[in-house]
Amino acid sequence: MDSLQARYTAVRKHTLALTEPLSDEDCGAQSMPDASPIKWHLAHTTWFFETFILERMERGFAPFHPAFRILFNSYYNGIGEKHPRAQRGLLTRPAMAEVRAYRANVDARIARLLESELPAAQRAELAMLVTLGMQHEQQHQELMLTDVKHLLAQSQLRPAYLDAPQPAAAAAPPLAWLHYEGGLTDIGHDGAGFCFDNELPRHKQYVAPFALASRLATNGEYLAFIEAGGYANAALWLAEGWDWVRTQKLDAPIYWFKDEQGAWQEFTLHGMQPLDLNRPLTHISLYEADAYAHWAGARLPTEAEWEYAAAQANAAQMFGHCWQWTSSSYAPYPGFAAAEGALGEYNGKFMLNQYVLRGSSLATPEGHARASYRNFFPAGARWQFTGIRLAQR
Amino acid sequence: MDSLQARYTAVRKHTLALTEPLSDEDCGAQSMPDASPIKWHLAHTTWFFETFILERMERGFAPFHPAFRILFNSYYNGIGEKHPRAQRGLLTRPAMAEVRAYRANVDARIARLLESELPAAQRAELAMLVTLGMQHEQQHQELMLTDVKHLLAQSQLRPAYLDAPQPAAAAAPPLAWLHYEGGLTDIGHDGAGFCFDNELPRHKQYVAPFALASRLATNGEYLAFIEAGGYANAALWLAEGWDWVRTQKLDAPIYWFKDEQGAWQEFTLHGMQPLDLNRPLTHISLYEADAYAHWAGARLPTEAEWEYAAAQANAAQMFGHCWQWTSSSYAPYPGFAAAEGALGEYNGKFMLNQYVLRGSSLATPEGHARASYRNFFPAGARWQFTGIRLAQR
Amino acid sequence: MDSLQARYTAVRKHTLALTEPLSDEDCGAQSMPDASPIKWHLAHTTWFFETFILERMERGFAPFHPAFRILFNSYYNGIGEKHPRAQRGLLTRPAMAEVRAYRANVDARIARLLESELPAAQRAELAMLVTLGMQHEQQHQELMLTDVKHLLAQSQLRPAYLDAPQPAAAAAPPLAWLHYEGGLTDIGHDGAGFCFDNELPRHKQYVAPFALASRLATNGEYLAFIEAGGYANAALWLAEGWDWVRTQKLDAPIYWFKDEQGAWQEFTLHGMQPLDLNRPLTHISLYEADAYAHWAGARLPTEAEWEYAAAQANAAQMFGHCWQWTSSSYAPYPGFAAAEGALGEYNGKFMLNQYVLRGSSLATPEGHARASYRNFFPAGARWQFTGIRLAQR
Amino acid sequence: MDSLQARYTAVRKHTLALTEPLSDEDCGAQSMPDASPIKWHLAHTTWFFETFILERMERGFAPFHPAFRILFNSYYNGIGEKHPRAQRGLLTRPAMAEVRAYRANVDARIARLLESELPAAQRAELAMLVTLGMQHEQQHQELMLTDVKHLLAQSQLRPAYLDAPQPAAAAAPPLAWLHYEGGLTDIGHDGAGFCFDNELPRHKQYVAPFALASRLATNGEYLAFIEAGGYANAALWLAEGWDWVRTQKLDAPIYWFKDEQGAWQEFTLHGMQPLDLNRPLTHISLYEADAYAHWAGARLPTEAEWEYAAAQANAAQMFGHCWQWTSSSYAPYPGFAAAEGALGEYNGKFMLNQYVLRGSSLATPEGHARASYRNFFPAGARWQFTGIRLAQR
Repeated sequence: MDSLQARYTAVRKHTLALTEPLSDEDCGAQSMPDASPIKWHLAHTTWFFETFILERMERGFAPFHPAFRILFNSYYNGIGEKHPRAQRGLLTRPAMAEVRAYRANVDARIARLLESELPAAQRAELAMLVTLGMQHEQQHQELMLTDVKHLLAQSQLRPAYLDAPQPAAAAAPPLAWLHYEGGLTDIGHDGAGFCFDNELPRHKQYVAPFALASRLATNGEYLAFIEAGGYANAALWLAEGWDWVRTQKLDAPIYWFKDEQGAWQEFTLHGMQPLDLNRPLTHISLYEADAYAHWAGARLPTEAEWEYAAAQANAAQMFGHCWQWTSSSYAPYPGFAAAEGALGEYNGKFMLNQYVLRGSSLATPEGHARASYRNFFPAGARWQFTGIRLAQR
Repeated sequence: MDSLQARYTAVRKHTLALTEPLSDEDCGAQSMPDASPIKWHLAHTTWFFETFILERMERGFAPFHPAFRILFNSYYNGIGEKHPRAQRGLLTRPAMAEVRAYRANVDARIARLLESELPAAQRAELAMLVTLGMQHEQQHQELMLTDVKHLLAQSQLRPAYLDAPQPAAAAAPPLAWLHYEGGLTDIGHDGAGFCFDNELPRHKQYVAPFALASRLATNGEYLAFIEAGGYANAALWLAEGWDWVRTQKLDAPIYWFKDEQGAWQEFTLHGMQPLDLNRPLTHISLYEADAYAHWAGARLPTEAEWEYAAAQANAAQMFGHCWQWTSSSYAPYPGFAAAEGALGEYNGKFMLNQYVLRGSSLATPEGHARASYRNFFPAGARWQFTGIRLAQR
Repeated sequence: MDSLQARYTAVRKHTLALTEPLSDEDCGAQSMPDASPIKWHLAHTTWFFETFILERMERGFAPFHPAFRILFNSYYNGIGEKHPRAQRGLLTRPAMAEVRAYRANVDARIARLLESELPAAQRAELAMLVTLGMQHEQQHQELMLTDVKHLLAQSQLRPAYLDAPQPAAAAAPPLAWLHYEGGLTDIGHDGAGFCFDNELPRHKQYVAPFALASRLATNGEYLAFIEAGGYANAALWLAEGWDWVRTQKLDAPIYWFKDEQGAWQEFTLHGMQPLDLNRPLTHISLYEADAYAHWAGARLPTEAEWEYAAAQANAAQMFGHCWQWTSSSYAPYPGFAAAEGALGEYNGKFMLNQYVLRGSSLATPEGHARASYRNFFPAGARWQFTGIRLAQR
Repeated sequence: MDSLQARYTAVRKHTLALTEPLSDEDCGAQSMPDASPIKWHLAHTTWFFETFILERMERGFAPFHPAFRILFNSYYNGIGEKHPRAQRGLLTRPAMAEVRAYRANVDARIARLLESELPAAQRAELAMLVTLGMQHEQQHQELMLTDVKHLLAQSQLRPAYLDAPQPAAAAAPPLAWLHYEGGLTDIGHDGAGFCFDNELPRHKQYVAPFALASRLATNGEYLAFIEAGGYANAALWLAEGWDWVRTQKLDAPIYWFKDEQGAWQEFTLHGMQPLDLNRPLTHISLYEADAYAHWAGARLPTEAEWEYAAAQANAAQMFGHCWQWTSSSYAPYPGFAAAEGALGEYNGKFMLNQYVLRGSSLATPEGHARASYRNFFPAGARWQFTGIRLAQR
């Protein structure tokens, strides 16, 4: 169990490390209802351990603060009331210092629990729950970066999260098409190591022959789409996407800005940067991804195609650059059953009107993702590190 | 070609027959943006023939009225401007009489075209387009009934569309589970007769073993869900469905009303009727269908399961009662390609954030549906004749 | 009492005469929540007589139709429930024919009541209520014209309400400033003849010396404001007006359109007409009136100034062209008291966030208005026949 | 000029003193678009001095930070672009420390300017502008308290702004009616000392005889209104107020909460407190004030009545408790002219759809208000320290 404690400590430390470039003021603001303040992420991930582990398993459990049960509940109706999501930025109290104390307190109690004598069944349950909490916290580590980037972008000062200069990207190789035979194949996690419930059960799917792009779409390729009038051509868009583009008067990805000389700039974690044409395109909606694919004479892959190809390990940039939109609606795998109780709300209840993304991004913590991992967002989400890998018949 | 002309005439006449119980006043109103006035349906279906056939193929084509090109365009960006959808009820001009004249005029010109000498390729294209227009008009025949029902329900007078009394439903047989082996199977239209492009290409899918309910869910079964507190139990609902229920403060299907004595009444095409517990439940959203299935310890079928079972022809009430929600997001079949030009907008651009319904309803014209037919609506749609067939692992 | 019956008959006939150019379809539609269908006006004015006279005074009263009490109640909470205002256009039932029968029925019953023997106090009350009902109906006669104009403007066919050609306007004389001494003056109705409760009590106000424009602002003068960039110059607008202009992207009055050659056209009751520069400007909001006055180096008059000047009878176009915005918020006169019961809701409860208009318009029935008459609308209302008379210190 | 510098320093220090109970986190959040973060108040009041004084009069002017011109512009279109009002809470940069530095920098430059040799006309203008800036800052001092109170109320922790316990209120004396003769009277500032442009010109108004309540309405009196069903009785409310009450489902003032035992509590600057029945009622909208007055058989005073009575100095609680709603729409006095340029936007452009409040509140800085002072808010504003003084004919 030492190793679990060590991994727990490492994950929890990494969360705090992400706040180092930020002031307490930075950590309190919420740029939109879909994003959360950094402080709220710090508290909610702690609440997860307190609520789902300490409250169940700690002898003589007493909450760190009774109000936190409500304030830092994200969406678990089974736990009870929730502070309104859109008003997380108004929680100037508890202060950052108190939230840090909350983290330290829960960490100490988790450590004691891990050290304690427990019957084997409880020990196994504890290990499962601590592991789930760590995976959950890693998901929030990525959200902290997406959310703080979105926040910093709201100010005309456009401050950088990272002082270090952005490294230059290497020239993108020509896009090639990798061909796959498909057939009756097994999809879903194969049993070794942790996975989320939505990756199970592993099951059969028939995949027709297809081709996948050898790398991600680049900023330069997407710029060509823009310059060809992509945002003004209804024929390229899904009906809902076309409404979205026109209602919001969009003509470029969320973080692309033209400077006074008309040159494209991109807001990054390193602040404003000249648009790097070689870099993989990120921060686009499914609507945009689909329109681009249409324009490029291609389509988006299904999640089964993506997972099948990932197993072949011959495509580049599958992980670590950006999440890749698929055309697959987020749905339960055949035989999926959510857990009993509030933890069953973790994934299952979101399986409607969202689309699956595969891979992982530059903001995903090391070791968090895998080939069967299913990320999901609504079609209009742009503040995540989302990009495009094309497919063809 | 005689037979095509005869079928064309029959379809066109049936549309007008549906307006017989209605006054011109009834035909002008639009109860909500999702619904259209009857007059608009009459004109739009005619516009379809004029725009996609006469304008292409009629020698010396001149429009019946130049403004109609805009007024009665539904959603074809490739054709050009459109009158705003939510304002179709404001078109008191053209009057019903002028719309009837428009229908007669286009009918005569289509008849002349069908009688004319044409090269074989053109004759084949004409037959294809006339057939598509007839299928399109049949879809609107069903919408006319759903839309006029919704309109009549808005008035506290609750007038009946049909004078005839509603026939009593037979007692519902006990629900049985029909078991299917599944396996690698072919899904999609198999080539004989007309189908829409979204039913193609026929392709392989792997279907795991499953069970399907022998009949539809009844009003009585759904009432038990309500009385068990179904609308107040978050644990039964998808997250988006729970938001929907609470925001709209819903606690029953759209046309169910309690009378002053507390007895349930249902608004039907025959006017207000005591709720018939034996009749298949209709007019529910996917959110409600999913929550009910959850409560019943079951789930909704996928569209492949439904189609596979339909081929076995051993389940009752598959057609002619109500459209059956599936858990399948409306998506292109592998290899799907929309037609070139504006007609390509018919289906393809709606393949996002909608869910597939299978079967057909009591409002579906005779002969219109088939086992591979894919109807689709957003998860919150309630004014269609939608119902529930349960599935199980 | 003969004369009251005769006047009653004349008013009621005039209402029906206004519907002559319209079909039943035209009479059912509602172009926006602020406007009502013609059919609703026909029924509501009848409801007023039935509810406030017959229900109180008719022996053995029984309603023409019990549901009409709710369907045609406009805003009288004291009477009870109301059909939702924004859904008046969905009342295809009762049909126009039934509403006409409702009018005839109530007319006959009012006639019987007027002929019946009544104690003097009841006779006086009856005369007062019938007179109020007639005045109320005349207000709706003007609204019928404003509302049907707005409805017809929604269709790209832009049909005319009147077949007759629009008469040409005479050249507008140069605008002169008429100077008034002011002083301590009496404002409000002076006791002879009918007035609404909001014109009472007559009371003292001090009016400082001021000047009033000798005539209304013309289309030509307003066009100069537009061409000088009036709609794009924040400095001319009230803060709320500037938000309104930008949010709605406005750059001209509601019924002004540029044709394909760039020439201004105006939609009128006679259909589309070339903009007549000599005609008094109509259909502008208070926001626009105030910005125009600002640009012209003037201001809008207060309602006391307007009424004071009207008594001197030396200014042109005070009545019969368009209602003239004043800078006066609609507020109770000192000592104002609303009537007891539901009739007390007629005027008093609207005395907030509305502004007073004085004079009368070309749509006002003959003999309806007077110098003390207080019309009122919210600052953004444009579909009324509203215009500008300038004032100066 | 020493004394101006001294007063400037005192005002600026007081602003900072108000932030003492607050953390930097508290100072960054914005609870609603109508409110602003404390940090924004600190910066905007400084921007006012920099923009309207230093930019005009400082030799070699260079802005402290070029982006601040946009970030801290409230509503001056004449100055240029503005950061969106509803997103002031997203400005985590500049940090509080930088805003404090901004204040110190501008203070030093203002001090140098005040000490410098200037021609008499410029010296007079400088004095006028510095005075205006100080008065402006005092207005924001009150807003800081209203806004931070609203922010702290959003958290279920309901933290107190002030640690000190709330002093108990003395028993309220019985309400008496003070009678005033009225007549032709002079209204507006009389020329000695500073006033805002909206208090000018002093002018004649005729005031009819009236009576004014000897003191403010108390919490206890308002509780009686609630317990008598005031919030559920349409007859008491203005039409717009009744819509407001029902749409927002209101049944008590904004900061009144029932505890678990059903006892009323009030959120105050001292945190949650048992409702003090003797204390003047605060934090109610004009809608509520008007309905209460109606229920009490009284009315709200006009602003002229209030000012006339204030001159007699015989009514209690005219200043220092809460702003008192009047029935007077905020409108220009006869002959009012806004200043040239951006400073002319200070008051004039808001003179529409707002209502005048008179007196001052416990949050108003010492010496800021006077009898002719005109505060103004929209009818629905509740987060200000607003209350009720009744009037009668």
